[in-house]
Amino acid sequence: MQEKTSYKPGLDGVIASETKLSYLDVEAEEIVLRGYDLIELAQNREYLDLVQLLLQGELPKQQERSTLEQELKEEYELPDDFFSLFHKLPKHTHPMDALRTGISILAGYEQHLDERGEEQIRQIAVSLLAKIPNIVANSYHILHNESVVAPRQELSYSANFLHMITGKEPTETEASYFDQSLMVYSEHEMPNSTFTARVIASTNSDIYGALTGAVASLKGNLHGGANEAVMYMLLNGKTTDGFRHLLYEKLKKKEKVMGFGHRVYMKKMDPRATLMKEALRELAAEKKQEELMEMCEAGEQLMKEEKGLYPNLDYYAAPVYYLLGIPIDLYTPIFFAARTLGLCAHVSEQYANNKLFRPRVLYTGPRGLHP
Amino acid sequence: MQEKTSYKPGLDGVIASETKLSYLDVEAEEIVLRGYDLIELAQNREYLDLVQLLLQGELPKQQERSTLEQELKEEYELPDDFFSLFHKLPKHTHPMDALRTGISILAGYEQHLDERGEEQIRQIAVSLLAKIPNIVANSYHILHNESVVAPRQELSYSANFLHMITGKEPTETEASYFDQSLMVYSEHEMPNSTFTARVIASTNSDIYGALTGAVASLKGNLHGGANEAVMYMLLNGKTTDGFRHLLYEKLKKKEKVMGFGHRVYMKKMDPRATLMKEALRELAAEKKQEELMEMCEAGEQLMKEEKGLYPNLDYYAAPVYYLLGIPIDLYTPIFFAARTLGLCAHVSEQYANNKLFRPRVLYTGPRGLHP
Repeated sequence: MQEKTSYKPGLDGVIASETKLSYLDVEAEEIVLRGYDLIELAQNREYLDLVQLLLQGELPKQQERSTLEQELKEEYELPDDFFSLFHKLPKHTHPMDALRTGISILAGYEQHLDERGEEQIRQIAVSLLAKIPNIVANSYHILHNESVVAPRQELSYSANFLHMITGKEPTETEASYFDQSLMVYSEHEMPNSTFTARVIASTNSDIYGALTGAVASLKGNLHGGANEAVMYMLLNGKTTDGFRHLLYEKLKKKEKVMGFGHRVYMKKMDPRATLMKEALRELAAEKKQEELMEMCEAGEQLMKEEKGLYPNLDYYAAPVYYLLGIPIDLYTPIFFAARTLGLCAHVSEQYANNKLFRPRVLYTGPRGLHP
Repeated sequence: MQEKTSYKPGLDGVIASETKLSYLDVEAEEIVLRGYDLIELAQNREYLDLVQLLLQGELPKQQERSTLEQELKEEYELPDDFFSLFHKLPKHTHPMDALRTGISILAGYEQHLDERGEEQIRQIAVSLLAKIPNIVANSYHILHNESVVAPRQELSYSANFLHMITGKEPTETEASYFDQSLMVYSEHEMPNSTFTARVIASTNSDIYGALTGAVASLKGNLHGGANEAVMYMLLNGKTTDGFRHLLYEKLKKKEKVMGFGHRVYMKKMDPRATLMKEALRELAAEKKQEELMEMCEAGEQLMKEEKGLYPNLDYYAAPVYYLLGIPIDLYTPIFFAARTLGLCAHVSEQYANNKLFRPRVLYTGPRGLHP
């Protein structure tokens, strides 16, 4: 007999994995990455440092950092025929679907697809971290009949990523906030996409497959898709008053307001959102777009008063990306590119200590029928 | 504080979903599909009947069955440019990766990608059930520089699938056992790939994405990849004595023997394996390949005596596919094509009663470090 009591809808409260990578300490309002506070890391370090930290276990020394940067740059280029495939995709392909297709195709070029050793997986992770920004930026360009923007070796990792997206060399401030956004998106315990990647990897399937599944997961509007929805909402609001009105209307119609609330952070503001809020304040001032900041703060205030809900990361990352000149359709693919780091680290950890995920169901259908 | 007691490695024993679709009743040794015994269905019905049963809730009446068959046949053809993309894939792309890429690309052609209504999902499911056999068979042909085999409207669904794979019109016996194999692979409660699809769908992501993740999951050799491993093992064994010797060697080296044991069936033989064993017996007699049957039975006997393990479905499905003239690399893609049915039904059920999957972790790393 099945007991209903062991049914956990959404696996709420179930601990599904053991990890040394990260932990959301909800009470202390801290996102722990291998012992460090993510917010402290994002204030004092760069994305490349987090790459070393998550994949290797420790923050890099100067020399290790240079080696890693070099290793990444050597992996920027995609196979010769790669983009010719993208020219053949239907033009209204969703950017997340183009990214998923790109990662899926890339598996066919991988010489070490069947290996699961830690160092091999690290090397594949570096290759993916080098190539995914290229796929994200240039699949977008191709689908929009724009020219491919080749990676530039002399720029930093994040500056090059932003450059491939916008076609322009970013200022130091722009590159720095973009890098910070990549850090806050890099890893976050085990949200749906990370869980998806671990579930797939647990069949001993390869890391490319685990990542294609994670792209599909992150695309969902209850997960990564939220950052784009936030920006469309802000643009629809147009002005601070307009945005307030739009939010009131949504609440009246009992529609879900994207960018607020989090399954894990229930009573406090996502600390990553606080960081992006500061980034927005500075970028808005520099670019004389103060009303965008004003709108966001008005929305934050309204939702706190009306619903007791706090902004999540997407709420403040979206307008930051907007001010960085990033096309809205790319917000979720960029989130994925940043999260590639955490995903690869989790997949590697899953291989190292694996048990196949195979939960059961609560069957509520009929019995005893005969064909 | 985290309690270790709520950590469930592999989610063993955790009920993660409520479903009206299917249930493994381990004690009664029964696979229940919407109230019916899968084995009874596989003995008395055809794959098309199961399509109607799983997607619509009831076995079809004669007229409904004809309508469904017509609906499927109208959806056989792939978009014009579709296979030209496959000509550009690296030639050593794994067939499961080609299938994953194919489903991912297909999303770009879908006009109703954002819809989640039950009837809309049913229509997409029918389209996927019509097109996936075409992708499976013809991506293989293209990667092997063979000609594409176009679907033939006058053949039954399963006969056409087998025809596209082998390039030959199957006999009635061949088509019938192939159809039976599709039935036994069609649905099986919530193994890793089905769980993956539901986890992805729970973010409200689309069904194409859920299926690409499921392909990646099924590719793993702890899941769907096992049927191919079984066949290579049989071929390596060459003769009954050789196969016995090979198994003894594997046991001596403590290597895992594929095709035996099942996370859920612990003490009895998978009833689907029993059905495929009978199919193998008849096909082996018809094709004068009795030694293959003898080898399989010897292996079954040996593993029962030495390890107390019983064959699972893959153990007997693999040699059946071999005798049907199917290339070994296609065993897992065919498993996926058959399981597309169950996957689509689960994704539809997930949309209809959704809660985002978001389990927690047991963090075992350090705390209190500063960058």
